[in-house]
Amino acid sequence: MKPKIKVIPGSIVAPKGFKTAGVFCDIKRLGTGKGSDKGPKRDLALLVSEAPAAVAGMFTTNQVCAAPVKVCIERVKHGTARAVVMNSGNANACTGRQGMADAREMVRFTERALNLPAGSVLAGSTGRIGVPLPMDHIRAGIIEAGVWLGSTARHADHAAEAILTSDTRSKQIAVSFKLDGREVRIGGICKGAGMIQPRMSADGRRPAASPLHATMLCFITTDAAVEARTLQAALREATARSFNRITVDGDTSTNDTVLVLANGLAGNRAFQISNSKFQIFQSALNHVCLELARMIVRDGEGVSRCVTVRVHEAKSAADADGAARAVANSALVKTSWHGGDPNWGRIIDALGYSPATVIEEKVDVGYSAPGSRRILWSLRRGQPTRATFQQLCAAVAGREFDLHVRLNLGKSGAIIYAADLTEDYVDFNKGDVTDPASLGG
Amino acid sequence: MKPKIKVIPGSIVAPKGFKTAGVFCDIKRLGTGKGSDKGPKRDLALLVSEAPAAVAGMFTTNQVCAAPVKVCIERVKHGTARAVVMNSGNANACTGRQGMADAREMVRFTERALNLPAGSVLAGSTGRIGVPLPMDHIRAGIIEAGVWLGSTARHADHAAEAILTSDTRSKQIAVSFKLDGREVRIGGICKGAGMIQPRMSADGRRPAASPLHATMLCFITTDAAVEARTLQAALREATARSFNRITVDGDTSTNDTVLVLANGLAGNRAFQISNSKFQIFQSALNHVCLELARMIVRDGEGVSRCVTVRVHEAKSAADADGAARAVANSALVKTSWHGGDPNWGRIIDALGYSPATVIEEKVDVGYSAPGSRRILWSLRRGQPTRATFQQLCAAVAGREFDLHVRLNLGKSGAIIYAADLTEDYVDFNKGDVTDPASLGG
Repeated sequence: MKPKIKVIPGSIVAPKGFKTAGVFCDIKRLGTGKGSDKGPKRDLALLVSEAPAAVAGMFTTNQVCAAPVKVCIERVKHGTARAVVMNSGNANACTGRQGMADAREMVRFTERALNLPAGSVLAGSTGRIGVPLPMDHIRAGIIEAGVWLGSTARHADHAAEAILTSDTRSKQIAVSFKLDGREVRIGGICKGAGMIQPRMSADGRRPAASPLHATMLCFITTDAAVEARTLQAALREATARSFNRITVDGDTSTNDTVLVLANGLAGNRAFQISNSKFQIFQSALNHVCLELARMIVRDGEGVSRCVTVRVHEAKSAADADGAARAVANSALVKTSWHGGDPNWGRIIDALGYSPATVIEEKVDVGYSAPGSRRILWSLRRGQPTRATFQQLCAAVAGREFDLHVRLNLGKSGAIIYAADLTEDYVDFNKGDVTDPASLGG
Repeated sequence: MKPKIKVIPGSIVAPKGFKTAGVFCDIKRLGTGKGSDKGPKRDLALLVSEAPAAVAGMFTTNQVCAAPVKVCIERVKHGTARAVVMNSGNANACTGRQGMADAREMVRFTERALNLPAGSVLAGSTGRIGVPLPMDHIRAGIIEAGVWLGSTARHADHAAEAILTSDTRSKQIAVSFKLDGREVRIGGICKGAGMIQPRMSADGRRPAASPLHATMLCFITTDAAVEARTLQAALREATARSFNRITVDGDTSTNDTVLVLANGLAGNRAFQISNSKFQIFQSALNHVCLELARMIVRDGEGVSRCVTVRVHEAKSAADADGAARAVANSALVKTSWHGGDPNWGRIIDALGYSPATVIEEKVDVGYSAPGSRRILWSLRRGQPTRATFQQLCAAVAGREFDLHVRLNLGKSGAIIYAADLTEDYVDFNKGDVTDPASLGG
């Protein structure tokens, strides 16, 4: 039986016992305006649980790893947390010893400002790489955000805004479902836009023999009662099906972070991995993570079309993943998507140089509406079908479509949520050397 | 002692005993004009040696491999050849059994038309993927090119033009040097533009445990006397240092081919691998291949800047190569090059997710003029240097510059000849769905 998961308003403060705030503290030192209800874009947020929360996290596997990520990896191990301090405008990455000292000061200052126990605050940063954090501004921001903390949708809006960088809109969701007859809620906010192909793991280490591939930040709250170890297992699985399956530009950031805080205030009985209650919680967490991940792709830098690449019947799971990523990251395939060109030649070329075993005479390539099983095949067993060019163009004309690749060599599949490559992406990322503040990671 | 290698005119007909011709035979079936000395772009060429020639080849490792490549792999094994038939406008890739039959008919028809022995003709094709070769046009083109064969620079110009696709200009070179007191010559033509990151091997098979990564075609002639096995060894080495070290867009084509014909008419005594005469021949072949490879990068689709990525002091050769390719193929690094932005944050990010071992605190990043050892460092041991933003912008403002990455972990190095990513690349490759003839591989 599929659990009933309802989308509800309230974002990260939909679950009981969470407060948040987002303020402007001029982290880019533009010297404009002041943090208040109006004014320039917010750049610092706090998220606080009124009760101690179990915590889980997934972090970038990039070997060049930002200071706040290192602080989180250390602290998540303890299994409990109370709050997260987050900022945009500065990634605190490649900032050396000063960066580590600043990240630690950021969490400790938050602990003192909010009167929380030592070790109970986590941090997430995004923005320019290689520039020291302006700690005076950060401290002022923390103090101010502490004053504004609250539990309305408007508070969540402010926090969701504060973590955005090149994103054009904020990304939020909340759901509710039943456990032990109790209403349980999960809420989340995230940011993405560029440098997006996350490959996160629980300890920031690369999985053995795995290829590596944004800044994305995601902060999730829930009032479910769940132990940290169980929460970590659920988050690992949800990330594997969502954030670790998206790509905008194939670049993996130094700062990718997903954190979940579970404060138990829903009052359900704690559950174990693999029992039926775990499955319900997992389904709800999967839903939240996948919806947020897809919002990141849709709002990727310059993105005009989103394509779900579905590889079927590959020889192995690694083959399916490798084939899907090769197609999803090919500059030629991505530009053809932008042009509305159903170019199977570039697709089969990318499959051929992917790490997957591919036999040209066995490959099927087709298109469907998002999530539909009615596939219009352009290529069957390596040969063009009778589908007309006009029919194929119509199949790839929408803002979103699914690309199906059947390798016909085995039983493994993989999905990658991908985006096209546009002139706007290039124009945005070439930067403006007359304005150094526009540049950076 | 460095051998004296002189650049000379004459391209592929500079070596003794070679004739060539390039004609228009309407392979795209545009129905415009007719093959003649003027008129539309030529699309079919012949290259013929008057004496039997030793032959060597390197071919795409893409698992989806075009029919003419398969024919060449079979025939190069025999060690001798007399001629090459080449065309643009149609890649004869993903064309199934008909494609193989057409590729074989193309070489056999050339043998009959030129009265050459069976098995002595090779083929190279580039252009649209998945469309059958128009064999009536191909046959007419071969007959006409056979009539026009000659040994002037103008003949070579026509052949060099006939293999171009999205290239904006033809790519030719010839050199001469002395062996045994005899004047020996090597000449070459090539094409590139898009789908350019060749990873070729002698048998089209992937090297074990090697990552895979244009259509590029290259045809080289020499009047050196050299055995096929020795010629293959020299070509493998020259390709490893040139064509297999370039990238325009990171896509590896189904058709990449390099062929060398050595007819021995210079009259030197044949030489063995690793003696001093071999070294001289190798140096000259390296020079020809590297110059042609760099012409491909400079004329890559939409390219505005060429960057030579030089990785130094990596832990292993595979690490050096992996680090250089990650930087050279990062969408964010490439767009920053386009913008003239000395963005080291994106470079160190790409290094961090590359397959190479990278320790942030050890990484140096800097810039120099092409080939210069005067490096302006932007990052030393993971930390920004005192170089000003203006100084760094000046270092990356030229149409060509070298990017130096020192990992400080070992003794291995690698060079990748890379290009930027521009709006023009995207605009060109998104195609025009109102004109299906503009689309394809």
